[in-house]
Amino acid sequence: MTTKPSKDLETFENPQSGRDYTINIDIPEFTCLCPKTGQPDFATIRIEYVPNKLCIELKALKLYMWAFRDEGAFHEAVTNEILDDLVKAIDPTFIRVQAEFNVRGGLYTTITVEHTQ
Amino acid sequence: MTTKPSKDLETFENPQSGRDYTINIDIPEFTCLCPKTGQPDFATIRIEYVPNKLCIELKALKLYMWAFRDEGAFHEAVTNEILDDLVKAIDPTFIRVQAEFNVRGGLYTTITVEHTQ
Amino acid sequence: MTTKPSKDLETFENPQSGRDYTINIDIPEFTCLCPKTGQPDFATIRIEYVPNKLCIELKALKLYMWAFRDEGAFHEAVTNEILDDLVKAIDPTFIRVQAEFNVRGGLYTTITVEHTQ
Amino acid sequence: MTTKPSKDLETFENPQSGRDYTINIDIPEFTCLCPKTGQPDFATIRIEYVPNKLCIELKALKLYMWAFRDEGAFHEAVTNEILDDLVKAIDPTFIRVQAEFNVRGGLYTTITVEHTQ
Amino acid sequence: MTTKPSKDLETFENPQSGRDYTINIDIPEFTCLCPKTGQPDFATIRIEYVPNKLCIELKALKLYMWAFRDEGAFHEAVTNEILDDLVKAIDPTFIRVQAEFNVRGGLYTTITVEHTQ
Amino acid sequence: MTTKPSKDLETFENPQSGRDYTINIDIPEFTCLCPKTGQPDFATIRIEYVPNKLCIELKALKLYMWAFRDEGAFHEAVTNEILDDLVKAIDPTFIRVQAEFNVRGGLYTTITVEHTQ
Amino acid sequence: MTTKPSKDLETFENPQSGRDYTINIDIPEFTCLCPKTGQPDFATIRIEYVPNKLCIELKALKLYMWAFRDEGAFHEAVTNEILDDLVKAIDPTFIRVQAEFNVRGGLYTTITVEHTQ
Amino acid sequence: MTTKPSKDLETFENPQSGRDYTINIDIPEFTCLCPKTGQPDFATIRIEYVPNKLCIELKALKLYMWAFRDEGAFHEAVTNEILDDLVKAIDPTFIRVQAEFNVRGGLYTTITVEHTQ
Amino acid sequence: MTTKPSKDLETFENPQSGRDYTINIDIPEFTCLCPKTGQPDFATIRIEYVPNKLCIELKALKLYMWAFRDEGAFHEAVTNEILDDLVKAIDPTFIRVQAEFNVRGGLYTTITVEHTQ
Amino acid sequence: MTTKPSKDLETFENPQSGRDYTINIDIPEFTCLCPKTGQPDFATIRIEYVPNKLCIELKALKLYMWAFRDEGAFHEAVTNEILDDLVKAIDPTFIRVQAEFNVRGGLYTTITVEHTQ
Repeated sequence: MTTKPSKDLETFENPQSGRDYTINIDIPEFTCLCPKTGQPDFATIRIEYVPNKLCIELKALKLYMWAFRDEGAFHEAVTNEILDDLVKAIDPTFIRVQAEFNVRGGLYTTITVEHTQ
Repeated sequence: MTTKPSKDLETFENPQSGRDYTINIDIPEFTCLCPKTGQPDFATIRIEYVPNKLCIELKALKLYMWAFRDEGAFHEAVTNEILDDLVKAIDPTFIRVQAEFNVRGGLYTTITVEHTQ
Repeated sequence: MTTKPSKDLETFENPQSGRDYTINIDIPEFTCLCPKTGQPDFATIRIEYVPNKLCIELKALKLYMWAFRDEGAFHEAVTNEILDDLVKAIDPTFIRVQAEFNVRGGLYTTITVEHTQ
Repeated sequence: MTTKPSKDLETFENPQSGRDYTINIDIPEFTCLCPKTGQPDFATIRIEYVPNKLCIELKALKLYMWAFRDEGAFHEAVTNEILDDLVKAIDPTFIRVQAEFNVRGGLYTTITVEHTQ
Repeated sequence: MTTKPSKDLETFENPQSGRDYTINIDIPEFTCLCPKTGQPDFATIRIEYVPNKLCIELKALKLYMWAFRDEGAFHEAVTNEILDDLVKAIDPTFIRVQAEFNVRGGLYTTITVEHTQ
Repeated sequence: MTTKPSKDLETFENPQSGRDYTINIDIPEFTCLCPKTGQPDFATIRIEYVPNKLCIELKALKLYMWAFRDEGAFHEAVTNEILDDLVKAIDPTFIRVQAEFNVRGGLYTTITVEHTQ
Repeated sequence: MTTKPSKDLETFENPQSGRDYTINIDIPEFTCLCPKTGQPDFATIRIEYVPNKLCIELKALKLYMWAFRDEGAFHEAVTNEILDDLVKAIDPTFIRVQAEFNVRGGLYTTITVEHTQ
Repeated sequence: MTTKPSKDLETFENPQSGRDYTINIDIPEFTCLCPKTGQPDFATIRIEYVPNKLCIELKALKLYMWAFRDEGAFHEAVTNEILDDLVKAIDPTFIRVQAEFNVRGGLYTTITVEHTQ
Repeated sequence: MTTKPSKDLETFENPQSGRDYTINIDIPEFTCLCPKTGQPDFATIRIEYVPNKLCIELKALKLYMWAFRDEGAFHEAVTNEILDDLVKAIDPTFIRVQAEFNVRGGLYTTITVEHTQ
Repeated sequence: MTTKPSKDLETFENPQSGRDYTINIDIPEFTCLCPKTGQPDFATIRIEYVPNKLCIELKALKLYMWAFRDEGAFHEAVTNEILDDLVKAIDPTFIRVQAEFNVRGGLYTTITVEHTQ
């Protein structure tokens, strides 16, 4: 079973259209590259969303995160990019993306971005 | 003493009809099957409700959770199904059901569903 | 020094009548009997109240909790009963009683009851 | 299903006679009475043993602990008594009994007793 | 360097008069005497305040807490007394005093008092 | 990708034959049935071994654990059975199997079994 | 690579101008000198801000914190000074600076300052 | 019920003379005075001993600790003094006394003293 | 400052040749690829060694770990390979390498390898 | 009260010459400079020793640690230097010095050095 990194965010129909509810997904295995030095950065990505008509397929989400492995990405920009891609894919009622980056130079940085329909 | 899994949610009369109060029940031993692969999934189910005329009998609730052991169940669908069954059984003033699924493919998923009368 | 279990809730005058403030008391040593099986149940009782004219005397509160040791008591009913007894004794501005029962059959149950003047 | 407190320690045959192994049982719900004041004491009992020909049946062990509920018992004496009763019932290769008593007068007391065949 | 316990609460001018901000001070080393039995009581005192024109000098606050060491003090009364003394000394925009007393007779008691200008 | 529960423990050749080293595998998702009541039991299985010529393939180990899902199994017997099966499959220099069962009747039970070549 | 302590707070353009979001930076390695005794003080600085047109460059922020190493600084004053410098540099929509100082004389002090545009 | 601080260490006969066992007592409420500055010091005292013919009575031990409240005591000397007093009172098979003092000047100090018969 | 991943393990002379001592290095940011599926694996590498004539340079060690980022590597093999490379580079008196891999399929795997001169 | 950093390690006579015992001192506020980059390094220093004829005076030890604030110091060398200075000052029966350095480049380094008479 070999799968490939891909930014295609597969979706499925929300099984409960008559009621708002919340989905939390924590992903402790995010890694990309520092655009300045080329060195690896590591982060935990936390997603919380209220689905509208569509939900994110979990295996596709995993491959999506994998696709950042060889990309250069600034902390602030990549967190906003993940939010934008998720909004485009599932147009949720509400979504928050939080990226907790590993310590660099003694500083612990976390970026939190939200979108409401 | 052999008892059987069953989706019948036994109830008893709320001993305090004159006042709203809250009941929390945490169930760390929920397991069902993944509908795609047939493999076991594990979750902790957390229920919080404000009873109206009826309360859920705890032993029946345990047998109810047991009844999912051999069923295929998507994360989002099964959490909504548990909420629907509890609402039908006790018609509570308020209820929240939360399912924290064990990690799969490096992703930790939690579904939270609420109902208010 | 032998003292006896007793449901008499001794009180003393609130030393600060000009200002609302909050008193929290946690009691990890509550035990009663299951009315169905006769077996012991254990709980932590947490009380939070804003006193009005009277405060609960702590040693009397301890003896009050002891008085449940040989009584059969349903989770939901006993938590409401403790609240009712405290309201009757000190008529507080606000009070919350929370009973966190030890795990039974894999289920962790907590009952939370509030009263406002 | 009503069962009664009893100091009869039911046993069953060790399913593995050809090999030494270890069984740990933690019991956070032990309570007895202080022989001086008559007031309730609470403890966590921890048992570790290497079975010989017999193992302790768990439900009987629970009823055994229950049987101390209305007995006066000094910390040091009751821990040795539990060890003696277990040794008499199953004659284990090794056994340790540890009683961690709840704080009294600002002092946290733990008694640890061992027996080797 | 010998200093003495003293209820004189030395102050200094708030270095930032144009903006509200918050100061938290936790003091885990408070001890006084039980007025009934004469035995020592221990507590952690937590102070949160928004300064107005004056701030509390920290070394003086330490000596102030020391001054309770040989005084009899009821839980509810002493917490209100500390608040009153601080209000008199610095007239803050907001202040909360919280006293978490060590366990006595299996009961954990915390008193929380607030004052707003 | 549908796989099936199976007690076949697939192995692979130890990549390092010239040196002893240790492999730890923790499996928090073990479930079987109580042989007396038919009700589900849950445990965390912890394996530590020093490989000899063979190592356990991880996916096969997961399917092996799955194979207990519908079997009745006493705590003491099943822990010894898992050890026996692993010894038969890989004949390790050393192995320890530990089963931490979820609380039942207020008792927390852990079984620890070791085998040395 | 030798860099120097400097109070110049380098900035970069906010990569996401169309949406408010939050940046948290925790810095556990802050040290300055006590203005009274000349002895070292240690603190953890926590910054939370909603960027407007500019973001703080992280390496410059590290050098900025380093610049306090040989300066005398009162707790309340230095926390306000850091806030003022950050507001001047990036004019954020919102910012909070929190300084948790290490224990001195048994007292744990934390200063929290906020600014809203 | 007023009791007084006293260095008299009351004892009682070891209820189990035929077997060695261990008693642990943790006392988080020890306070004395610094002999240099006169200011209060705070410590947690941990005692572990194997009784011989006598055990320490717990209430007397509490009053013994209270007796240090107004005494000047160096860290190293007071820990040895407590050990000496306990050895004189109960002549134990083994005893260890450990004093964990609260932080002073950024230093956390613990003294550990043992005695074997 | 751009540096590159490299398996060259730079060293420096042990500053203390007359005495054995221990160096621990924990590296929570190790990632490689699964040789079967090509998907990323993540681990924490823990190194403990007693230096002989040489020590490992820390920045070189970081680049060494980075060099596994695009390599396929079995758990057991890669842990032994890291140990072998470190032994070849610094010939230490003692060394232990421990790799704690992130959960896969509900299994948590840790490999521990040691070498003594 | 202004004191100065100083490498003079003041001592006092061991109050208990007839018995070996252990003194632990943890110092979370150690900082020095990186000899390569000039940037600050931070560490927690942990000292454990069995005194012989002399003990280390705590206030002098604090000033000793302060004396490294403006010195360049390699991790391995500075830990050995602290041990050497302590051995020269008090000639202890046993001493261990442990330096846990803050994370740098994703690596957490700890150095442990011991000396026995």
